[in-house]
Amino acid sequence: MVVTAGAELLADALTAQAVPTTRVDWQPPVTGTETALVRTMTDPRRHSANTTASERMLAARAALVDVRPASQALALPPDHFLHAGPPVTWERASGPLRGGLIAGMLLEGLADSPEQAERRLASGQVTWEPCHHRGAVGPMAGIVSASMWMMELRDEVHNHTAWCSLNEGLGKVARYGAYSPDVIRRLRWMSEVLGPLLARAVRANGPLDIKAIVAAMVQMGDEGHNRNRAGTLMLLRDLMPAMIETGVPTSDLVESVRFISGNDHFFLNLVMPAAKLQTLAGAGIPGSTLVTTMARNGTDFGIQLSSTGDRWFTGPAQLADGLYLASFGPDDANPDIGDSAITETAGLGGFSMATAPAIVRFVGGTVADALATTHRMYEITVAENPAYAIPILEFRGAPTGIDVVSVLRTSILPQINTGMAGKVAGTGQVGAGLVTPPMDCFVAAIDTLASLAETPVGRQF
Amino acid sequence: MVVTAGAELLADALTAQAVPTTRVDWQPPVTGTETALVRTMTDPRRHSANTTASERMLAARAALVDVRPASQALALPPDHFLHAGPPVTWERASGPLRGGLIAGMLLEGLADSPEQAERRLASGQVTWEPCHHRGAVGPMAGIVSASMWMMELRDEVHNHTAWCSLNEGLGKVARYGAYSPDVIRRLRWMSEVLGPLLARAVRANGPLDIKAIVAAMVQMGDEGHNRNRAGTLMLLRDLMPAMIETGVPTSDLVESVRFISGNDHFFLNLVMPAAKLQTLAGAGIPGSTLVTTMARNGTDFGIQLSSTGDRWFTGPAQLADGLYLASFGPDDANPDIGDSAITETAGLGGFSMATAPAIVRFVGGTVADALATTHRMYEITVAENPAYAIPILEFRGAPTGIDVVSVLRTSILPQINTGMAGKVAGTGQVGAGLVTPPMDCFVAAIDTLASLAETPVGRQF
Repeated sequence: MVVTAGAELLADALTAQAVPTTRVDWQPPVTGTETALVRTMTDPRRHSANTTASERMLAARAALVDVRPASQALALPPDHFLHAGPPVTWERASGPLRGGLIAGMLLEGLADSPEQAERRLASGQVTWEPCHHRGAVGPMAGIVSASMWMMELRDEVHNHTAWCSLNEGLGKVARYGAYSPDVIRRLRWMSEVLGPLLARAVRANGPLDIKAIVAAMVQMGDEGHNRNRAGTLMLLRDLMPAMIETGVPTSDLVESVRFISGNDHFFLNLVMPAAKLQTLAGAGIPGSTLVTTMARNGTDFGIQLSSTGDRWFTGPAQLADGLYLASFGPDDANPDIGDSAITETAGLGGFSMATAPAIVRFVGGTVADALATTHRMYEITVAENPAYAIPILEFRGAPTGIDVVSVLRTSILPQINTGMAGKVAGTGQVGAGLVTPPMDCFVAAIDTLASLAETPVGRQF
Repeated sequence: MVVTAGAELLADALTAQAVPTTRVDWQPPVTGTETALVRTMTDPRRHSANTTASERMLAARAALVDVRPASQALALPPDHFLHAGPPVTWERASGPLRGGLIAGMLLEGLADSPEQAERRLASGQVTWEPCHHRGAVGPMAGIVSASMWMMELRDEVHNHTAWCSLNEGLGKVARYGAYSPDVIRRLRWMSEVLGPLLARAVRANGPLDIKAIVAAMVQMGDEGHNRNRAGTLMLLRDLMPAMIETGVPTSDLVESVRFISGNDHFFLNLVMPAAKLQTLAGAGIPGSTLVTTMARNGTDFGIQLSSTGDRWFTGPAQLADGLYLASFGPDDANPDIGDSAITETAGLGGFSMATAPAIVRFVGGTVADALATTHRMYEITVAENPAYAIPILEFRGAPTGIDVVSVLRTSILPQINTGMAGKVAGTGQVGAGLVTPPMDCFVAAIDTLASLAETPVGRQF
């Protein structure tokens, strides 16, 4: 389906080419993108490419099949880190990203102090690359280092694997850029106790259908980004028998159960790789104008498209509009960071806001705002996911498959729910709120899409 | 607040007596109740009595403090049973109630076969009385016998205690009137393994705030009667560490965890006593026209009022309108049965349908129907419970405190969500659906209320 407005000639041209069209109230497209838009929209491959990409996204499955250290799962050497968002140098790296890298250095024993870690990071003694380049996703700073244990999820339909680290909890944690001794101690415990316990439980249990849990949580007030309470409860329910049967010492078992059940966001780190599998399934379709990645490193917001491979289209990361913890305020917040916008890329998070009105209310909005947000997202997406049905919208499927063309034509930006990290490395979480990508990403993307577009038969540009 | 419609003279009279009034579209009251209604509505105590009763209902707390056999908790001798609904003789008892009693006889070793049990029940060798007469509540047949373990809940604000048995699961279970060997075996396991384990866990854990869990579940798509999934998950989460630390054999622990987590209704048996504590708090206020009990024994539907003590006002139990399991149909269903309508009496269940649209959809309704149902219940209730806030209604509190006067003036009957038992003893569950009380209960109640009403100063009847 193509949404057209105003430009009747274009709509007629599309209709003549047998592309289904929907007419909506006209609004001018983002200035300067008109030519590229027309060129992209008349690419005769576009309609079927987007249909293919979105159908593959909806068909993707996600099962938790293993929990393994990154050294094994991703063959990650100790001196190589993964991080959230598009690539970034030390010089341009944001405070929380630097903080996360420092935590990784300390955890891996590559530095004895934060200062030493910082010097070694700045001098190029270690390397890093985006999680997305390795099929992984990381919330906030998203640092993955060799000894961190990873959830391993499989999409058997498309033969894809995706990974995510274990969620550390809230407040002062490495993913928010903290690296104090208690942060490192917690990470060590996760590597020594929690990871191995979960690994034994998952292996004994067999593949656990994460897509089914996400489907159930969407019916229980979780949008899967800023609210993951029901998901966490269901994960615990499903793994509990196998966790008990591992026979680990009772104190380790109880500590692990308390750790998981005390953090409503534990399941976020399973929604994210499930969403990654969904978008991976939609990737690699020539002619498609769909977004398959939205990710931020705290400096840049980057998107990737189905038809343009690993190429990033970036713009400056924005500040979230939200609520601050304790005495923190807007001056303390770092711009938007994390791979967790993969949830929105897959139709969850802000896109499914209607199912979680508690989130908008938390930042001063109303239930009507929550409904309006999801309705708005239908305008920039090409599909609805029947597996993720939103009760209050008469079980309408989550809006899925962001179309760059629709974003530019409507000026409606994807709505993202997010946590906010302190801008100074070492701070931790300072709040949570709502944010959008910069329009720049989509403007950059359309130029490339236009340059790659095929010309319809009988038409000249 | 008094709702008045049409009868301007009455409204003026009430206003003159400084009773707050709200005018709504007029509809005729239930025929034949006009005189009793006027007499009851002009009782000068009514407004403040209902305010007191509803405020007490909202202030009630509910904490799980112990799990004990009914022999201890309720001093129940082996030859005395409790059952759902108002009192009933063997001759008038419905199939599922009889089936439940047979199960109780077999469980307590008072009979060797269902036939022998039936003969002994019919010949008066054992006795039974309503759960409600002992501060207990029982879902469906609601049979409580001496060796069944009871959840013991406390409202410290009003110094009340309420009890409910452990939920058996779905399908062929004693509360739906089944008594086959596997049913009795399951009940024995519950008495020998599950009950003692939960008792140790609850005692080790300390009082568990059930009201807080109900508050959370209402925000997660559970209305607390036909949907208790989030509640069950949160109970499991909260008791899990203490359950592990009991040190019971791993096989017993795992079996218990699987039993609880495999039954989304396990938490119903905690919502019910929490609701009972809420309505108990509202009981005993002279002049109040509020309902404090709605309960059914499969033959009669009975209500009790705040101002009329243990007296039951009854009418014939209705057939639910719903969906049938497997090959069952309307001919297989017994009329409405169970104390679980205590959830609606406390503003949950059908009254909070708006929060659980999956329930109406399950029986062919729409989300709009779910919203309309809760909106309708606000018309027959006097208060809104801020603790039980319904997200989609902008977090409006659950409609609480059914006013007999409003039911008769509007002809709006309380909406109840329910399971359906097979009408033949031994069958088990045949479906689930929606039902209302018969209007007869309210008609019977208003006559008594009118006879007890005080006459306003300067007015003669």
